[in-house]
Amino acid sequence: MADWTVLDGGVTAAQGFRAAGVEAGVKYADRRDVALIVSDVPCAAAGVFTTNLVAAAPVEHDRAKLRAGRAQAIAVNTGCANACTGQAGLEAAEAVAQAAAEALGVDPALTLVSSTGVIGAPLPTDRVVAGVRKAAAALARGPEADEAAARAIMTTDTRPKRAAVRCVIDGKTVTLGGMCKGAGMIEPQMATMLAYVATDAAVDPAWLRKALKAAADVSFNRAVVDGDESTNDTLICLANGLAGNAPLCEAHPEAEVFLGALKALCTDLAKQIVMDGEGVSKFVTVRVTGARTDGDAHLVARAIARSPLVKTSWFGRDPNWGRVLCAAGYSGAEVDGALARILYAGIPAYDRGMVADEAVLARIAEAMRARAFDVEVRLGLGQGSDTVYTCDLTFDYVRINAEYTT
Amino acid sequence: MADWTVLDGGVTAAQGFRAAGVEAGVKYADRRDVALIVSDVPCAAAGVFTTNLVAAAPVEHDRAKLRAGRAQAIAVNTGCANACTGQAGLEAAEAVAQAAAEALGVDPALTLVSSTGVIGAPLPTDRVVAGVRKAAAALARGPEADEAAARAIMTTDTRPKRAAVRCVIDGKTVTLGGMCKGAGMIEPQMATMLAYVATDAAVDPAWLRKALKAAADVSFNRAVVDGDESTNDTLICLANGLAGNAPLCEAHPEAEVFLGALKALCTDLAKQIVMDGEGVSKFVTVRVTGARTDGDAHLVARAIARSPLVKTSWFGRDPNWGRVLCAAGYSGAEVDGALARILYAGIPAYDRGMVADEAVLARIAEAMRARAFDVEVRLGLGQGSDTVYTCDLTFDYVRINAEYTT
Repeated sequence: MADWTVLDGGVTAAQGFRAAGVEAGVKYADRRDVALIVSDVPCAAAGVFTTNLVAAAPVEHDRAKLRAGRAQAIAVNTGCANACTGQAGLEAAEAVAQAAAEALGVDPALTLVSSTGVIGAPLPTDRVVAGVRKAAAALARGPEADEAAARAIMTTDTRPKRAAVRCVIDGKTVTLGGMCKGAGMIEPQMATMLAYVATDAAVDPAWLRKALKAAADVSFNRAVVDGDESTNDTLICLANGLAGNAPLCEAHPEAEVFLGALKALCTDLAKQIVMDGEGVSKFVTVRVTGARTDGDAHLVARAIARSPLVKTSWFGRDPNWGRVLCAAGYSGAEVDGALARILYAGIPAYDRGMVADEAVLARIAEAMRARAFDVEVRLGLGQGSDTVYTCDLTFDYVRINAEYTT
Repeated sequence: MADWTVLDGGVTAAQGFRAAGVEAGVKYADRRDVALIVSDVPCAAAGVFTTNLVAAAPVEHDRAKLRAGRAQAIAVNTGCANACTGQAGLEAAEAVAQAAAEALGVDPALTLVSSTGVIGAPLPTDRVVAGVRKAAAALARGPEADEAAARAIMTTDTRPKRAAVRCVIDGKTVTLGGMCKGAGMIEPQMATMLAYVATDAAVDPAWLRKALKAAADVSFNRAVVDGDESTNDTLICLANGLAGNAPLCEAHPEAEVFLGALKALCTDLAKQIVMDGEGVSKFVTVRVTGARTDGDAHLVARAIARSPLVKTSWFGRDPNWGRVLCAAGYSGAEVDGALARILYAGIPAYDRGMVADEAVLARIAEAMRARAFDVEVRLGLGQGSDTVYTCDLTFDYVRINAEYTT
């Protein structure tokens, strides 16, 4: 049984956090586009950022500030990614952080920033700063604030994404709330994942960094929409300690409870991103077992999740196990077709050289009508396993991303 | 100036080769689906095959026979890939080779086979063998035979693909003819590349293997339609020596002339494959220069060519350099956005932090109306370079590959 429970909540679910999302006209009118998250007290903080070597200014800004392992507030804008903007971009990021710190009465060294939107364009700092001040005046807790903040970080996402979980540590109730935006493209540029987790747990900053990385590895890093990785991808966790538990660290007897809750929260958010991916009609969980190593399993799962041929076959409800096996074969992992099995929605399509008959394939095709199904590959080589969350490739994906916008 | 000239010809352009393509009803009626290529005399021979660990039976069959570096005939069928068919598949491949050898009066050890089509289904050996006999009776040289053979290996290709070049070695005229089929999907399964080169050059078998690998590396291995690699990909070269030159080897003073001609032929064929890719509306040459190493340049070119976000932007005629730079950034190669330049059709869109203005971007969008254009990335880091041939991602790609067929 899991040691955590799911709550109906968002980024202000934990004690001592407030949030807001306001219209600042960064790029469009009548659209919430600046969000603030702030803790009543300084927090232990950690971030996981894009591994793209072309990282945006706010990513570099936050990386630098998070070296100290502490933060208290985050200002987020959509409409402009502040990426490929050089030194001026870094200065713009710092200007936003300074303005947020001033409006919130927080140390600027503890104030982080995120941006998503068009790359290459200079950040309209005045508008973002005005938005930050407006948001500071609107800070609140509860469902409305959660919703407003989650909406303000959306780009082409079709719905706000938030989640919350609760666990008990040292006899204290610990809450984790979060929100994210997904792989929707902002017109016309970047797919960016932004995610924020706010918890009232007391956590040692060094261990928080490890825990957040571990949680990202089983959640956001296992979500594949199109395989492109943006310049701005960001996951930040603030832990303000108001729950009153003994600070979590490697040696804490209930560290695994918190880690489980954190993973569950991040996985929930990551799945929401894939479900709301551009033009997605099918949510597919790719499970690979029996690989020589976990690393091999991941290579196979990722190759399957990225293959345009596989993804279009899901869209077409075609139980095309051949494309799945083929992607496994070129994944770089050890694979032997004579030992492999492939199941759709639990129904075997290919079993160590034997192919399901037409009636079974028709049953699989029927099962593929569901909005969500599993594709499982059993490699028969060892104990390695991995799971990736992904989606199909549809006409709408092409339409959304081909729109001529210049 | 190149040391070779382009001919109007196909797989029988070189002396001593005959070919045929016939209707054998392997899967469909009224469609040429079995091809034969045969030399009047035994040839030095080499092959380059899929690196997919799930390799089809004919690939394993040919790899084994080509260890001796000699061959004389090739029988090809479409309609069934004979992949994931286990020991029975290997026996079926050998049965086809035996039948071809008998019909042609050739040593079975010198007879190769290729298959493309549905994977997982057993090869209908009787029909393929009957087709091979029919083809053996129809062998001929010249445009009609070239065309018939090139048509017989097509799957969803929309046109036959053939090419020929000529060069002079040791004062003798040496001709290289070839044909291929492309990344069109056969219903409903595999994208497979099959290519055959027939030359009258005398070539040392060990050197032929190296030369063919080098030619594949700059041609077929630089062609990216969707990044999926099939179980059946095959490139075979037969060299029958009838031109009368001294056998080509590392030490031969004109080895580079032959290699240049072979690369030119293979590049011509590879480009035809991309141009005729599924649902392709744009042929794009991605050139990367200024990389730290050639390997880095290839990583960048390949990441760009595989990115669904980049490919859809080409379809939409959107000069979205941000997606190009982003793909470069996650390619695994060393990339610095502040040093990079990106040009479309020779027009700079992004120059070391500076973005082209709207008027220039509009000019680029206009240039992207062409059926073919270049995208160039100058990394500003070193002397490494690479070129990849690729295409856009379109509604038609999704339609063709999502068709529900079970």
